Amino acid sequence: MATAIDDFYAVIPAGGIGSRLWPLSRADAPKFLHDLTGSGHTLLRDTWNRLEPLAGEGRIAVVTGRAHRAAVENELPGIPDMNVILESEPRDSTAAIGLAAAILVRREPEVIIGSFAADHVIRVPHLFEWAVRQAVETARKGYICTIGIQPSEPSVGFGYIRKSGELVIDGAPEAALVGSFVEKPDLDTAKAYFADRSYLWNAGMFISRADVLLAEIAEQEPELHASLLELAAAWDDREARGPAVDRIWPTIKKIAIDYSVAEPAAAKGHLAVIPGHFDWDDVGDFASLAKLNSHGRKNDLAILGENARVLSDAASGIVVSQTSRVISLVGVRDIVVVDTPDALLVTTSEHAQRVKGVVDALKLTGRGDVL
Amino acid sequence: MATAIDDFYAVIPAGGIGSRLWPLSRADAPKFLHDLTGSGHTLLRDTWNRLEPLAGEGRIAVVTGRAHRAAVENELPGIPDMNVILESEPRDSTAAIGLAAAILVRREPEVIIGSFAADHVIRVPHLFEWAVRQAVETARKGYICTIGIQPSEPSVGFGYIRKSGELVIDGAPEAALVGSFVEKPDLDTAKAYFADRSYLWNAGMFISRADVLLAEIAEQEPELHASLLELAAAWDDREARGPAVDRIWPTIKKIAIDYSVAEPAAAKGHLAVIPGHFDWDDVGDFASLAKLNSHGRKNDLAILGENARVLSDAASGIVVSQTSRVISLVGVRDIVVVDTPDALLVTTSEHAQRVKGVVDALKLTGRGDVL
Repeated sequence: MATAIDDFYAVIPAGGIGSRLWPLSRADAPKFLHDLTGSGHTLLRDTWNRLEPLAGEGRIAVVTGRAHRAAVENELPGIPDMNVILESEPRDSTAAIGLAAAILVRREPEVIIGSFAADHVIRVPHLFEWAVRQAVETARKGYICTIGIQPSEPSVGFGYIRKSGELVIDGAPEAALVGSFVEKPDLDTAKAYFADRSYLWNAGMFISRADVLLAEIAEQEPELHASLLELAAAWDDREARGPAVDRIWPTIKKIAIDYSVAEPAAAKGHLAVIPGHFDWDDVGDFASLAKLNSHGRKNDLAILGENARVLSDAASGIVVSQTSRVISLVGVRDIVVVDTPDALLVTTSEHAQRVKGVVDALKLTGRGDVL
Repeated sequence: MATAIDDFYAVIPAGGIGSRLWPLSRADAPKFLHDLTGSGHTLLRDTWNRLEPLAGEGRIAVVTGRAHRAAVENELPGIPDMNVILESEPRDSTAAIGLAAAILVRREPEVIIGSFAADHVIRVPHLFEWAVRQAVETARKGYICTIGIQPSEPSVGFGYIRKSGELVIDGAPEAALVGSFVEKPDLDTAKAYFADRSYLWNAGMFISRADVLLAEIAEQEPELHASLLELAAAWDDREARGPAVDRIWPTIKKIAIDYSVAEPAAAKGHLAVIPGHFDWDDVGDFASLAKLNSHGRKNDLAILGENARVLSDAASGIVVSQTSRVISLVGVRDIVVVDTPDALLVTTSEHAQRVKGVVDALKLTGRGDVL
């Protein structure tokens, strides 16, 4: 295994419930705390394991909600206390990643940070490492750098990043400037992007010097930036940390880092991208989870759950079993069945995106007990 | 309400698990012990309530498995002990109905018995009563009489009875001879039968003098007949009853009364039929249960279960809920979801008949605990 990168620190924002994966994913057991691939580890742990060879021992920070502190520490027994950055409530990605940057830059002014979601699935780790190493070299030159996934199909489920001019950077032969960001396309557009090869999936990975990232936030969102510095100043004092969060955090503007940092930086020719050639999925819904677990065989029934007792007669799709009940499927195609102790979901791959609506409806109808 | 018929005794064979209704219907909670119509009563109780005005108080016998004795007595608190006829194991309908006939004829040599399954659904009770009263008048003339249901659609799910010559019987203006029995037809044949109007659904209802029925069994199945007489002789002696059943019952030939009695009687011009104009269903599978509970609205989602917590987004079909779990259905059409504490079934109306295969597979794979 290659050695870790000296001046690199990994940041894992572990927020977001994953409403489209309800009732598997819950407020108290969000997506990143589940093993969705049968790896035997949670997505969070897989993310950690993927990053540790790059960042080195003890050089990963996790930004998560206070409610998940115990679960996160349980999953990551090696994490230093000062690297568990707790939010009192979700304030979107600029606040989460920006706070980590502000805290880490006080410890190491030259530090390069890389932010990677806690709940994505990545296969072929050495290709991931290769992309990150190139991104770090690019960041070292002062760019904010993202990793865009080379599409494996014309997906309409992801946003895209368009590459423009190539950059010449030692140790980053694939580095290019980002021309623009594109929202989720329709199928025809996605097909054109797929054929073009200069469009990459936006996987929300950002690698940058912490000071460069903070400068960009300062320019676009000065108030937010000031709040982050104030919080960071209090951070390493255990007594001051909690009260500072309580006071400042709820006032921070909610804005995705894509809008506060990435798009403005791209407009200035300041955002670079490294294409990622590894398998990547954000496991956005059960259709995606089914695909991920069916090993590419279309008529398969994927089964998730250690004690699953499934009897299938000509069924395909996915069963997630969190109970010991016998689950019998007869003649249902592309079905999604999620069986948990207090809630059951039945839908199809086609309608998997609409599961978020169920969560909204459960809130509205006073059945929040199962969220 | 009209008065009961003096010399009439109703017999309710309450056997059969209803495998196509698994996991709702179980070995220890067979179909007849469920409320499948939202009436607030089990099918057995509904059957009893329908027959009591015809037979009179205390004049209904139930033939059931020993395992169901407590449940049956609990459902039918008024039933005299001597009218609960317990089988040590299922030996098919000739044995069940024949034993009831043999027991009752010893009490009342002239008795007319009518046998009606415990797990059918009948609506419009006064039309049912009218059919039974005609059948009793016909039986009084020495015929074995069945009630055939006037089809409401060209069903391929039922066997048919073809009427032949009309009979002239006082009090039974619709009585006719049975020409023949026909097995479940294909759709084209069913359509022809439906147009023809002389084909009726075979609902397995038989009304006859007990001695006439026994004479027919004696002619076709003399050994079986001898066993029934021996059992009946021991019946009203509480001490002798159990041992006699233990010894004789397991040796009795398993044969449906359709083959031992109805078809031979029809061949001799000895079987009559009264058309039934009431709504009838044998609730043979979940597709039928869905139809029964959707009030004829095709795109409805029928929901069975007192404490059902169902959230449906553009779903149709049926949900049976025996747990307090939230059940969420998204975009599934003609779906069948049966949610019980230890087993879950997901199928579609189209495949509902195949549920019996699940039960067989569960037996074969050692998961009989959920049967």
